[in-house]
Amino acid sequence: VNDLGLAHIGHAELLTPFPEDSLSFFVELFGMEVEAHEGQSVYLRGWGDYQRYSLKLTESPLPGLGHMAIRARSQDALERCARTIERTRLGLGWIDGDLGHGPAYRCHDPDGHLIELYFETERYEPPPHLRPALKNVPQRYVGRGAAVKRLDHVNLLAADVAANRRFAQEELGFRLYEQIVLEDGSEAGAWMSLTIAAHELIYVADHARTRGRLHHLAFFVDTREEVLRAADLLLDAQVPIEAAPSKHAIAQGMFLYVYEPGGNRVEVTTGTHFIYDPVYEPVVWSEAERARGQAWGVKTIDTFHTYGTPDVSGRATGPPIPPTSRVPA
Amino acid sequence: VNDLGLAHIGHAELLTPFPEDSLSFFVELFGMEVEAHEGQSVYLRGWGDYQRYSLKLTESPLPGLGHMAIRARSQDALERCARTIERTRLGLGWIDGDLGHGPAYRCHDPDGHLIELYFETERYEPPPHLRPALKNVPQRYVGRGAAVKRLDHVNLLAADVAANRRFAQEELGFRLYEQIVLEDGSEAGAWMSLTIAAHELIYVADHARTRGRLHHLAFFVDTREEVLRAADLLLDAQVPIEAAPSKHAIAQGMFLYVYEPGGNRVEVTTGTHFIYDPVYEPVVWSEAERARGQAWGVKTIDTFHTYGTPDVSGRATGPPIPPTSRVPA
Amino acid sequence: VNDLGLAHIGHAELLTPFPEDSLSFFVELFGMEVEAHEGQSVYLRGWGDYQRYSLKLTESPLPGLGHMAIRARSQDALERCARTIERTRLGLGWIDGDLGHGPAYRCHDPDGHLIELYFETERYEPPPHLRPALKNVPQRYVGRGAAVKRLDHVNLLAADVAANRRFAQEELGFRLYEQIVLEDGSEAGAWMSLTIAAHELIYVADHARTRGRLHHLAFFVDTREEVLRAADLLLDAQVPIEAAPSKHAIAQGMFLYVYEPGGNRVEVTTGTHFIYDPVYEPVVWSEAERARGQAWGVKTIDTFHTYGTPDVSGRATGPPIPPTSRVPA
Amino acid sequence: VNDLGLAHIGHAELLTPFPEDSLSFFVELFGMEVEAHEGQSVYLRGWGDYQRYSLKLTESPLPGLGHMAIRARSQDALERCARTIERTRLGLGWIDGDLGHGPAYRCHDPDGHLIELYFETERYEPPPHLRPALKNVPQRYVGRGAAVKRLDHVNLLAADVAANRRFAQEELGFRLYEQIVLEDGSEAGAWMSLTIAAHELIYVADHARTRGRLHHLAFFVDTREEVLRAADLLLDAQVPIEAAPSKHAIAQGMFLYVYEPGGNRVEVTTGTHFIYDPVYEPVVWSEAERARGQAWGVKTIDTFHTYGTPDVSGRATGPPIPPTSRVPA
Repeated sequence: VNDLGLAHIGHAELLTPFPEDSLSFFVELFGMEVEAHEGQSVYLRGWGDYQRYSLKLTESPLPGLGHMAIRARSQDALERCARTIERTRLGLGWIDGDLGHGPAYRCHDPDGHLIELYFETERYEPPPHLRPALKNVPQRYVGRGAAVKRLDHVNLLAADVAANRRFAQEELGFRLYEQIVLEDGSEAGAWMSLTIAAHELIYVADHARTRGRLHHLAFFVDTREEVLRAADLLLDAQVPIEAAPSKHAIAQGMFLYVYEPGGNRVEVTTGTHFIYDPVYEPVVWSEAERARGQAWGVKTIDTFHTYGTPDVSGRATGPPIPPTSRVPA
Repeated sequence: VNDLGLAHIGHAELLTPFPEDSLSFFVELFGMEVEAHEGQSVYLRGWGDYQRYSLKLTESPLPGLGHMAIRARSQDALERCARTIERTRLGLGWIDGDLGHGPAYRCHDPDGHLIELYFETERYEPPPHLRPALKNVPQRYVGRGAAVKRLDHVNLLAADVAANRRFAQEELGFRLYEQIVLEDGSEAGAWMSLTIAAHELIYVADHARTRGRLHHLAFFVDTREEVLRAADLLLDAQVPIEAAPSKHAIAQGMFLYVYEPGGNRVEVTTGTHFIYDPVYEPVVWSEAERARGQAWGVKTIDTFHTYGTPDVSGRATGPPIPPTSRVPA
Repeated sequence: VNDLGLAHIGHAELLTPFPEDSLSFFVELFGMEVEAHEGQSVYLRGWGDYQRYSLKLTESPLPGLGHMAIRARSQDALERCARTIERTRLGLGWIDGDLGHGPAYRCHDPDGHLIELYFETERYEPPPHLRPALKNVPQRYVGRGAAVKRLDHVNLLAADVAANRRFAQEELGFRLYEQIVLEDGSEAGAWMSLTIAAHELIYVADHARTRGRLHHLAFFVDTREEVLRAADLLLDAQVPIEAAPSKHAIAQGMFLYVYEPGGNRVEVTTGTHFIYDPVYEPVVWSEAERARGQAWGVKTIDTFHTYGTPDVSGRATGPPIPPTSRVPA
Repeated sequence: VNDLGLAHIGHAELLTPFPEDSLSFFVELFGMEVEAHEGQSVYLRGWGDYQRYSLKLTESPLPGLGHMAIRARSQDALERCARTIERTRLGLGWIDGDLGHGPAYRCHDPDGHLIELYFETERYEPPPHLRPALKNVPQRYVGRGAAVKRLDHVNLLAADVAANRRFAQEELGFRLYEQIVLEDGSEAGAWMSLTIAAHELIYVADHARTRGRLHHLAFFVDTREEVLRAADLLLDAQVPIEAAPSKHAIAQGMFLYVYEPGGNRVEVTTGTHFIYDPVYEPVVWSEAERARGQAWGVKTIDTFHTYGTPDVSGRATGPPIPPTSRVPA
């Protein structure tokens, strides 16, 4: 076990060229709460987040990932981890922190995504109208929209999956649970986690050969029924559904993929595929196996392999709306 | 088959001494939409109602049932049914109609509950913000609160269950599916329906020996998971839960019972126990069988046998808040 | 309301060239119980069937539908209905009955499917090991495999949908709830029911211009979760999945389509889209609307429009196994 | 973080005076597979266990816990942990291992429960009829009975909760997530975990002042619907239900408690209440808070506070069958 002392992904920053529409999407349709506004950013939380937020939504000319932040298990672990990364060419140095958390060490992954590591954090204190009935949950369950509980995982596009996978394992202490390896030996995807959860960080191959792009952010709900319910809700809200609810072969999660108004792909997910084995042998999928589609045989949708944010397809604007979508043309 | 031409219960009128709080409850927590205001009444609908509303909420000094309205299968059937009832001492005569429906014949059941029969009705036309994606559903699924779909059934207290059960069967054409008969031969409950649905109208014994009281109104959701989710929501909203989600022995429905702010008991229910047999032999439960509790052995809560609206217990105000409720005393 | 006195579809007879494999499929994977063997047939039941069986499985050189049987609401209604059909060229006359039910009147629909109408029936009496805990359900819930509750609906291919739809409405009293009408005015599908259930009998266009073919039989489960669970089970049992769980636009049912070993398409379905309106205006879908796929945007799989039993494609044997299926080639 | 290098509870040994009945219960009703027989023991697995088994069922004059086995994260960690325990009076020494795993260090907890620590283990290799369709799950999902996935947690009775809680934290590295502390400062319960899962090991007060008793073993299913379905199944199988499905306040899990034929209490559970905070402040519940019952207000059943195995109540035989149970007296 390569245990470098990081605990879990604490939050992600999503960039959007349409901040008001994106905010409305995450509040009304994903059911998140606004915890704070600051500058061009809004900080949003799911009802199960123990920290103040897990999504920072920031206005930007193009969509994509601002940064991803990982919480360390202690201040010592944070400093140890920072020193290790400093020895690579990827370290960027310390910042004072951000809303809700203390000093953070910044670095890039090899593909150029911005990562922050921090330990000190503010635990969420709900205002009276969001106080829960039970003291072991952080916030009242209001149930608005899809009512996502928290950020679940981050899926990043990378020109060189293997290099980023190694960085995540060796410098950040992620454990590799599943991967796709093509016949020529090149890696097309890597599913990694800091915990027993089936995945927290995923790298998949970016065929566009650009850098630092986002594939999707995934938000957790407790049950498969909530994923189906989210599809009912988002359909009627005229949100473009890229992939209807079904079950992933890799990591066994239930999924629903849609585009938020900024053009970023976001997922509603759930699953209880836990990896208890401390010395788990990663599962390796071949091209032929992946061609069989998702768990129940649903063919993986083409755009899933081609679209990321920012978009580099030359398409005038916005994500590739599925032809079967019920969104007005 | 005693088929007198009535189709289904179209709506119920609920009386409340706290109309603003009750309205807020049905809109914010049960997720109903306000279709119209008129006089002291608000007309509310679930997302699955094909008519304009299924709940009429009316300000009144005491809680309870205003009236229950049953839609006939045709104008002919309505008039035929009215003529039959006119021959009993229970007929009250025709009214011009109410918001959303045409002429109605009014009568009492033997216990004194007010019943209206009608045929002509307005089908729901959603405003733009409530238009659904699919044309075979009446309204957009917004998913607010428990997001009840429609009124499901009406449970009335009656001093003489047998007399009211006979009235419903003989004058209204309800089919009897289940009943409780005590050792002395007296009837303690009757579960009846106009369709294959397991129940639409229920009479249970009123030990208070008053008349015209309401036991509860039940609202339908599509899945058992939504009943559990409703409990999560209502718990955090500090709504007093009389009976947590479990499964009824009689009629096999999943249930959750709470008190709305007016003091009336309301249920979130689902179930797919259909009675396809056109000559079904009613299931008769004995006292001993009922003493075994609900389907999975949960003891039926005492207040379920004693509380109705209006309350006649002499309690100062409001329903008997369960001692285990997390509502501030 | 055109009420001709039929109650519901009581059972269907499925033909199979591989009777042992088909029997094993329905018992082990769909979880049905064998109620009786007779001649080349086995009679099977879901745990919720109030009659002895809802599926008669019969050995035959080719797969397809043997017959479909509809129960009348009374002996009078049966005889009245038979006299009406006798006046058309489609009546075939009375038979003495079959295992579990009394005299039946046989006829063809215009496409040549064999239909039987009956009233007298034997209610199921469970043997000791299948006695349920609650007296209002017919059988113990064993939960084996997908544990289907009962036959839900029958979907028939027809060269002339309109003619068969009219026959079902006018001679059998079915109510039309939804239909597909092409731009040239021709009908491509009709969804009909004898009850508030969203469909019991469906006709869809048979492009093969043969007669009397079966599209699929659908079996009911109580919840959407059970449909997902069935997919998990059938995947691991190497059953070819034609269409993974998703939600129909028409009739709003949750679906899962697989091929049983005889080559017939069978569905696991659930849904609580009830039609309470006694004078419902049928929903008409256009070609363009259907091109948008199922409810959540899943494209309808091609074989769904082309494959039926018996197969007339000239394919050597068996159904068109999906390329994404995990069944060994 | 007190990280002593243990990974998770690997299996538990349950003692039963009625081994054949208990075996039939775990195979037919909980849906486990028999992996091996050896001596007076049968080794059983859930479909999600990555090791060969998670339940060892052993014939014994009295019911209760044989031992609980915890897997270390490495051989080094195992040896380090053993050395630490050796310094207390609770170490018992090494054994060669048991079926499916290597050398184990044995000790008692302060209450006298037998604990084994091991690292080397055999991963499950399914026989052909239990091979799954997807390579990242260990076994085919057959779906028999409640179809439990794996052992989830172990709940032990202890005369001195605080002493055992400290032992688990300090010697075994468990993290304390929730506890009950009475007004006099004494501890009545402790919920602990080695992972982000809400609990793996629980101690609750044993008022009988005996030692080494078992409160219950809990087995995991993926969804709340499966807990409800298990209740339907077990009801019809005449298994005594101690507590019908509902939701725990502590740790937020969905529960169903029954007695297996040996007299031991077993639970079907699910939940996704994860503790991601690496320096989580344990939630402390008071007597008054616990008196409010479970999450949705269900009063905790009396026997839950009084019954454990072996039973010391002087009752002639077997568990306290609930009066509402539908099991024949």
